[in-house]
Parts: sequence; structure tokens; C-alpha cells
Amino acid sequence: MRKVINFNAGPAMLPEEVLLKAQAEMLDWNNTGMSIMELGHRGPEFQEMALKSEADLRELMQIPKNYQVFFVAGGATTQFAMVPLNLFGDKMNADYVNTGIWSKKAIDEASRYGTVNVVAHTQQRHHLAYIPEVKDWLLNPDAAYVHYTPNETIDGIEFPWVPDTGDVPLVADMTSSILSKPIDVSQYGIIYAGAQKNIGQAGITIAIVREDLIQDPLPRTPTLYCYKTYAEHHSFYNTPPTYSWYIAALVLEWLKQQGGVEAIYKRNKRKSAKIYEVLDKHKDFYLTRIDPEFRSLMNAMFYLHDEKLTPLFLEQASLAGLENLRGHRVSGGLRASIYNAMPDEGVDRLVEFMLDFVKRHG
Amino acid sequence: MRKVINFNAGPAMLPEEVLLKAQAEMLDWNNTGMSIMELGHRGPEFQEMALKSEADLRELMQIPKNYQVFFVAGGATTQFAMVPLNLFGDKMNADYVNTGIWSKKAIDEASRYGTVNVVAHTQQRHHLAYIPEVKDWLLNPDAAYVHYTPNETIDGIEFPWVPDTGDVPLVADMTSSILSKPIDVSQYGIIYAGAQKNIGQAGITIAIVREDLIQDPLPRTPTLYCYKTYAEHHSFYNTPPTYSWYIAALVLEWLKQQGGVEAIYKRNKRKSAKIYEVLDKHKDFYLTRIDPEFRSLMNAMFYLHDEKLTPLFLEQASLAGLENLRGHRVSGGLRASIYNAMPDEGVDRLVEFMLDFVKRHG
Repeated sequence: MRKVINFNAGPAMLPEEVLLKAQAEMLDWNNTGMSIMELGHRGPEFQEMALKSEADLRELMQIPKNYQVFFVAGGATTQFAMVPLNLFGDKMNADYVNTGIWSKKAIDEASRYGTVNVVAHTQQRHHLAYIPEVKDWLLNPDAAYVHYTPNETIDGIEFPWVPDTGDVPLVADMTSSILSKPIDVSQYGIIYAGAQKNIGQAGITIAIVREDLIQDPLPRTPTLYCYKTYAEHHSFYNTPPTYSWYIAALVLEWLKQQGGVEAIYKRNKRKSAKIYEVLDKHKDFYLTRIDPEFRSLMNAMFYLHDEKLTPLFLEQASLAGLENLRGHRVSGGLRASIYNAMPDEGVDRLVEFMLDFVKRHG
Repeated sequence: MRKVINFNAGPAMLPEEVLLKAQAEMLDWNNTGMSIMELGHRGPEFQEMALKSEADLRELMQIPKNYQVFFVAGGATTQFAMVPLNLFGDKMNADYVNTGIWSKKAIDEASRYGTVNVVAHTQQRHHLAYIPEVKDWLLNPDAAYVHYTPNETIDGIEFPWVPDTGDVPLVADMTSSILSKPIDVSQYGIIYAGAQKNIGQAGITIAIVREDLIQDPLPRTPTLYCYKTYAEHHSFYNTPPTYSWYIAALVLEWLKQQGGVEAIYKRNKRKSAKIYEVLDKHKDFYLTRIDPEFRSLMNAMFYLHDEKLTPLFLEQASLAGLENLRGHRVSGGLRASIYNAMPDEGVDRLVEFMLDFVKRHG
């Protein structure tokens, strides 16, 4: 295990095996005598890698045949625009659920192109945040789609269920939850995810789009913002971010070696439970602001009752090799992001530190 | 020197020193105990790297203070849209020079947003392509800008001079020529370049934009397609492609170590002269279609008079470790892309092979 454990929310820790493989083949990929960075994206070697990565993703997520998989340069922010530009159609409106900072960013971007109805948002009971049930959402049956963020990285709040939106396509920003637990892709119209949490490194975003939603975009949509472009050119309209794609391919391969999504889900539940257990056991010292039912599997957010101790916590954690536990600049507090690549041992070291910190300062 | 010499047009060869450095620090960058892929883009370590890369670029290109430098996720195709979306303003038209396939792509994209006037295109004399002088261009003094492609990768044709467009801003797609020779940035309104030829790996594009051109874009322009977004957030509106940025930073550092742009220009002239000399000496065997004055410094395009021999040329070159000499699928023929990262030794090996091939088949 590496000495430094990186709890960053994204760009985030990658599996050590992936980094070692990328390192080993940096100057000679697949016996080409070249780095994969130096290879043409239309050559047979790169094409084979790309096809395999899509096949692996399809296998891991059991993606039905009537969904296409697109590899888009840039982060999930591209999809904040692409979803409305491609799906608004004649309706020119959509429903959005606001459960945190990333939802809000998606809402702001969609508002540039048409009408956004915020149909639900995070609520509070007993000082804890929760997400209201779908029956209480103000859904518009004529909406072009319903957009939500299954896991909010900054707030540490996660949907424990998938909203049923009937015939209105459900669009999910799964940047921080994709591949962390089994899902039924057929419940969604579009799933998208920036790579830098559970798929790989920053610079590439995966969009899984149901074929009937690949339609004519709004006028003047840039070519690279049209799903049709990706469908017609199999994500090769122009040079894709080849190395980011390659790292994603390595991570998907690694995930298969771990036993796939079911196996990683078990590990993820175990990992997050360890942290939340400490928080629950030491409620007088650690503070959480999320209803237990909605706690994130990937981002454990917490605070110290005595906020003056937060800098000391971070300083001592860093000395113990536990890095990047500071909460987002907007939320403050502390956050342990424990994506798929985080091993049990990393969480164990954090838990040990947290218990010790209580002993010394509680 | 590496055994395989990669003449690919892009993604292209990278300096061996850059790959070795990236390899060495893959799991521990800058004593962080983490890969730079795993680091937060807003952390001080990454920010420092980003600032240094911009400073290096500014130094190498002597970029004046009234120009901003943006790092954009994706390839130069993003700029085919961003330039018209941000510069059309009330004029809604621009002048474009069509000198080849990449010019044409920029023209097609700009045509989605307004009126494109093609003011000049490549012409032929004595079976050789040349670019007409600016005095013969049908320039519109009311155009929002004039766009051109100083070097056409696929066609192997390069402007030996910079067009004077008076008060109308000049926009240049320098993807395949940036940093290959000294230029005067102040002659341009915007210079942009995808990284995968002379800057680094695919997935990031650099745009150098004169400050007065950072203006309100057309309505409904996606946030990530507004130059203003990059200006206001210093290219950190969302997670940038961090590893592509890092590789670019290493390449810029390497270029400084080589003596900067003047030094690399000397090397580039020497390299291309070696190839063109063989072509001129063996005109009965090798065929060129570009007027010598307009020959590309970066992409030497040539054909065999006996086209039946082309597959054999490629096969034997490959056996000699000279890879990716096939011309673009649109142009056919042969092409040696010899960007900054191509060492003299690589060209020497190609020249030796070309001479030998004439001996054996001429």
C-alpha cells in the first residue's frame, strides 16, 4: 500500500495497479515501441483499446443494447449543456431536482437554453438533510426530462432510491457514483459521468444515452455538443482525449478484476460503514448533517463540534499520511472521499486516526 | 534514441525525456506521494504547475501582456466553434481562407453560426499548390475576423508569410505549427492550437486571445465555449484535463531546455531540408505537389511516381522502425510529420531509408 492515502473528492485516488501499469508501459504500449499518447486515434491499436473499454463498461453496468456509449472530451460540465441542448426539443423546458451544489450548476447551465423547473430540493428535519419522496415532487408530465444528481460530492448526500418519473426520461449526473453500486440502466434516459472519481483521470466524460434521445439539438449547437455527432462518428469525430480514455480503460479492467460492480459495492458499503460508525459512536465530538438514510457511499462529510480543532485535525491527519480531508471551500468541515479505488486499508487508517483524535481531544 | 521512430501527424511523437520524466513521477509527483492525476486541480501544487506552464509559454512565444492564455479541454475543433461564437458579435460574418482540410473543417463549423466568406483558397501552377498573395484575397473590411490555418497537416502546405489583414483581427489555427518557429504574437487576434502535435498529448487546447476580443458571445453559447468563462476563472471554471496540462508543461520545459523557439526552428529547418532535398534530388521517383515556397516545415507530403510501390514503401519502412508514414486517408500518399519532438536522428534514418528505397526500386 502507498504511504499517502488521498481522500480527495476529485481528481481522486486511482488504483495503484492502474498507475503501475500506466507507468510500466509509458514508453512502449502493447509492443508498439511507442507511448499510447503518441499513437494515432484512428490506428487499429487504439481502436481496439477503445472498443474493449466500451465492451468492459457495457459488461460492468449491463448496459442494454438500445443505449449508446459516448466518450466526450472535458468534464461533466459539458453535459450540463449537452443534455438541454439535445433534449429540450420543442418542449424547451425540463424538471430539475436540486440536492446540492452540482445540481445547482446543472440547473444554471440548463437555464441558459430554456425553462428549468426546480421540482424538489433537499429539506431539513431534526437538523439533518434529506431528500423528499417523488410523490412530493412538482413533476411536470410535459417536461422534456427530469434531471437529478444521485450523489452530491460536496454535500455528501446520496439518493437511496431511483426516482420513478414515468414516461419522462430520467437524466442522472453520476459523476461521483457511477460503478460504485449496481444500477438498472434501463431506468434512465441518460447517465453521464466525468471520469475523475470512479472512472479514471480528468479530461473525459462518459455519456450513456438511450437511442431515442439522440435527436436533433437546438439550432446553433456546436458540433461537439451534439449527441448525434458522437453516434455518427463513434466518439471519433475529432481526436478524442486518448490518454484519458486509456486510463479509463485500465480502471474498467481493474474493476472487472475486483469482481465487478457487485463486489465493489460490498467493499464500498463496508468502507463507508466504518467511517459512519465512528461518527455515530462519537456524536458528541463529530457532527453529521445528513439523515442516515441519505448518507453518501462515496463522500463522508462531517464536522467537529469544536470547529477550532479542524485545522489541527487536518494537520495531524496529514502527518499520518491522510491527505485532502478538508471539506469543499463552500461547505467547510471535513470530507473523506472513498471512491472505488480507496482500499479498505486506507479507510482503516483514517478510522484509527479519527478514534485516536477523539481520545486526545474529546 | 528509441528504436521506433513515429512520424504520425497527431497524436504525435513526444520527446523521450518528457515520457521518461512522466514515467518516473507517475506514482509520486513533486514529493506528494501521489500521481499528478490524483491531485486536486485547485490545490497549491497543481496551481503552481499550471502557472509555471503559462509563464513558460509566454516566455517561449513572447506573448504580450494584452493577451490572455486559456487552457481548454478537448481539441482544436472546440475553437472552430468558439471563435465564431465569441467573435461574430453583431457582424455575424467572417472571412476564411481555405488552404486544405483543416481550413474546411473550421469553415463548416463557423457556417453553423453565421456567414462565412471564403476569401482565398489554394491554387495550382505547374501542378504545384500555392497560396495566393493577400492582395488577391477578397477581404471584407467589415468582417468580424479573418481565419486561416498557417500549416495544413494533411496537405503539407504552409504559409511562408503572415497575412496582413489591417484592422480586422487575424485568427490562426496553429495546431500543427505552434512553437515550431518564431512568430510575432501581436500580429494576431487569436492563436489556438490543439496540443497533440507540438505541445503535448491530445485532450487540451491552448488559446491565446487578445483581451479586446474577450467579448459577449452569441446567445445560448455553452458556458465552456465562452472565452469570458476562461478569463474570469483562469481556465479553472471546472476541472481542467489535469494530466494533459501536466504533459504540456513538461513539453514546454523541455523546449526551453532545447534553447527555445529560435533553436528549435533551426533544427526544424535542418530536418525538413534533409527530406525535401531527397525529394528534389529524386524527382523521377518521388513526387511532391506543393510549390517549394509553401512546403511545410512540419509535415513533408510526398508520393511515389509508381503508386503501386507505396504499400511496399510503408512495409519496409515499418521493418526499419519508421512508423506511421502513410498519408491521411483523404490525401493518400506518404507523409513524414516531423514536429519539434522529432530528433535529427529520426529524420536521418528516414532519409537513409528513402535513398535506399530509390536504389532498390528506382
